[in-house]
Amino acid sequence: MSSDYIHLNLFTMNSVEHVTTGNWRTPGDQSDRYTDADYWQEVARTAERGGFDGVFFADVRGIYDVYGGDRETAIENAIQTPSNDPAYLVPAMASVTDNLGFAVTKSTSYNHPYQLARELSTLDHLTDGRVAFNIVTSYLESAARNLGLGERMDHDDRYDRADEFMDVCYALWEDSWDDDAVVRDRESGVYTDPEKVRAIDFEGEFFDVPGPHGAEPSTQRTPVLYQAGSSDRGREFAADNAEAVFVSQLTEEGVRDYVEDMRDRAAAKGRDPDDLLFFPGIAPVVGETEEIARQKYETYAENVDTEATLALLSGFIDLDFSELDPDQKVEHIETDAIQGAINAFTKNDPDRDWTVEEVAEFAGLGSTSPVVVGSPEQVADELQHWYEDVGVDGFNIKEIVRQGTLRDFVDMVVPELRERGLVREGYEGETLRENLFEEEGRTRLADDHPARN
Amino acid sequence: MSSDYIHLNLFTMNSVEHVTTGNWRTPGDQSDRYTDADYWQEVARTAERGGFDGVFFADVRGIYDVYGGDRETAIENAIQTPSNDPAYLVPAMASVTDNLGFAVTKSTSYNHPYQLARELSTLDHLTDGRVAFNIVTSYLESAARNLGLGERMDHDDRYDRADEFMDVCYALWEDSWDDDAVVRDRESGVYTDPEKVRAIDFEGEFFDVPGPHGAEPSTQRTPVLYQAGSSDRGREFAADNAEAVFVSQLTEEGVRDYVEDMRDRAAAKGRDPDDLLFFPGIAPVVGETEEIARQKYETYAENVDTEATLALLSGFIDLDFSELDPDQKVEHIETDAIQGAINAFTKNDPDRDWTVEEVAEFAGLGSTSPVVVGSPEQVADELQHWYEDVGVDGFNIKEIVRQGTLRDFVDMVVPELRERGLVREGYEGETLRENLFEEEGRTRLADDHPARN
Repeated sequence: MSSDYIHLNLFTMNSVEHVTTGNWRTPGDQSDRYTDADYWQEVARTAERGGFDGVFFADVRGIYDVYGGDRETAIENAIQTPSNDPAYLVPAMASVTDNLGFAVTKSTSYNHPYQLARELSTLDHLTDGRVAFNIVTSYLESAARNLGLGERMDHDDRYDRADEFMDVCYALWEDSWDDDAVVRDRESGVYTDPEKVRAIDFEGEFFDVPGPHGAEPSTQRTPVLYQAGSSDRGREFAADNAEAVFVSQLTEEGVRDYVEDMRDRAAAKGRDPDDLLFFPGIAPVVGETEEIARQKYETYAENVDTEATLALLSGFIDLDFSELDPDQKVEHIETDAIQGAINAFTKNDPDRDWTVEEVAEFAGLGSTSPVVVGSPEQVADELQHWYEDVGVDGFNIKEIVRQGTLRDFVDMVVPELRERGLVREGYEGETLRENLFEEEGRTRLADDHPARN
Repeated sequence: MSSDYIHLNLFTMNSVEHVTTGNWRTPGDQSDRYTDADYWQEVARTAERGGFDGVFFADVRGIYDVYGGDRETAIENAIQTPSNDPAYLVPAMASVTDNLGFAVTKSTSYNHPYQLARELSTLDHLTDGRVAFNIVTSYLESAARNLGLGERMDHDDRYDRADEFMDVCYALWEDSWDDDAVVRDRESGVYTDPEKVRAIDFEGEFFDVPGPHGAEPSTQRTPVLYQAGSSDRGREFAADNAEAVFVSQLTEEGVRDYVEDMRDRAAAKGRDPDDLLFFPGIAPVVGETEEIARQKYETYAENVDTEATLALLSGFIDLDFSELDPDQKVEHIETDAIQGAINAFTKNDPDRDWTVEEVAEFAGLGSTSPVVVGSPEQVADELQHWYEDVGVDGFNIKEIVRQGTLRDFVDMVVPELRERGLVREGYEGETLRENLFEEEGRTRLADDHPARN
């Protein structure tokens, strides 16, 4: 890790179910309040009380209709549908917090950079610099069909477009307005010096954007950049752009290799490798004692819906699990994502062969991330191990029940981590970038980031 | 009018200057706080205190670069640039109010209906039904160049696209999910009944959208629909879609003719003509006495920037005023918009011939709307006259100084109007549609609206 303590994001979605299944049925679960601003303001206050850097909003366009070739299972189990746009939660949540950041997922395949650059500038203004852009290229065919592409672009084309998309955004955010362009001189009547606002004259394969940017520079200018590159092309993209990376590898060895590979790639591009922060996901199940935690785990595991989980995994990896025998051994399924789940699972039980159904049961709680079950001390031990021994900078906390998972974590695990000096007591600054990089005044992208050259 | 009292919207923009020029220089003016959530929350509280139905956010994409063929004048005078996205203000403002509505301007030329339908559903959920969609087709060439169209579509093509855009939105909002689709049955594990969520299978000239809608039905389903159709094609569009119309005619006769024509068109389409509400804009300058009001007016008029006003008008009507002699008489300029301003002006002084410069001086305060100057009683008299004798349902209050114009109006004119029984003391309902139509329980589009057939 390159951080002095563990950084925390809540990993959530503006929907009923995100990466777990069936636990909206758990008594007291409030997933159905996702449409209420009050709900999200409570979440924001709790996360800030726990010293979290931010709330990370996943998002998806389209519906999980790969499983069985229809959308019935996804709809019935509220698998990421219904869902609302996450970006509109930010202004409501920011208005009841002072330091908490907000990472919003937006797709470079289904937005236009001139439009999205303005939206993110708006959010960065309204939050005084507490916004991150989680850059995704989108994977569901059903999104493409609804958004006018007919069919999804292939993986590499999506990344080509994403590269150009970011070049347009960087030019608008970093180059179009000088820091001192806005002068607000009541005497001379000059609000903005037009000499200090420039066209960007971008002409590319996907976009022609003359500019200039319509928004004046916001606090961070470019929002903090999150990405989750996993393929070779995705890793190159992350090494070019990301400041924080969501790690989907699950074994210690896999994470170590990934971190090392990504730091090498960033260095090869002339960036300080420590300017990349690494966040694996975990789903914590914590109780006052180990026994209470185990009881919670049993309840949660019982509520998992196996078919719903398979519908979710089918969407992730574009493979229809309904066509497979539930008792089929997963070692024969050759995909990275499901292999990740297997690796995580078999880490504790290397000699067992897992079936499709068993993996679905496991993935129904943590999706493709480890589920950590135990007392506050035990959960803290596990996080400390990954932080100190594996070298991650922090964690994306996945929710199994809402708001229980977050509250349990903040009320039980965070105090234990604070006692160990592993979670912040206060924030370094007012912007997300300052807090992520533990450096007051570091509101802007690093000088060696490609956007600034 | 078809209303029992006067309805009020604040007409504003997420920018420094909206439809006036130069008055960001007035001492105490807070236009430069447009980037602050606090500023907008103050505005929201004041408007709700004044019984306003809503805050109407204008918006524009592109830059006013018609005047002189460059953007210098617009940039220097902050003419609608810089500006931020207005929709993100809504969640922050809604969280400090209970009844105030929010009309957001979005362009059917530069959005995709599958995307925008979800965004507006999200806002309607978060505000519990307090959102309106001000439908525009966009007029600045510079927006088209930045957003991938190369050049602006012509006027009628823009409306063809808008027609189809709304058809897609209506199908998503009204037809895709049954009212009882979301069952949240913890026992059976069914969150949504998939039989009650339908594809829309829309195939058109501009859009193919299979659906279904990704969002569950929000409080109003379809947000309240605002429009400002002025051309014949625009009026037809408004008669098909709008529930509230922003009137840009300025003489009493012009407004009467417009209202009558629009009600006829709506009736011809099978709609109840009273389901169209009419809102002209006014710029109120009010003081405790007429003399104080006149003094304020003098200050504001002095701050107007003539060249900036011409840059604004040039963008509105796509005519480069820099090529005209400032002393040229405007009667020879044949365009509707400028003629509106002239009509309004000459109403008080019919024998005078106005020059380009004189119109610019006038339009710098109210843009193309009347400026009403006087004591609270005098301003109330004028509004009462337009409401009772001309037949409008209310007004879009245009700001000259911020937040002064709004606060003066709410603190001085609203109490006078309330004494006359002309402005509400409380709200009829919790949704914008209930309040606009003065009918508790009327949260949905009328049954005879084309969207529901």
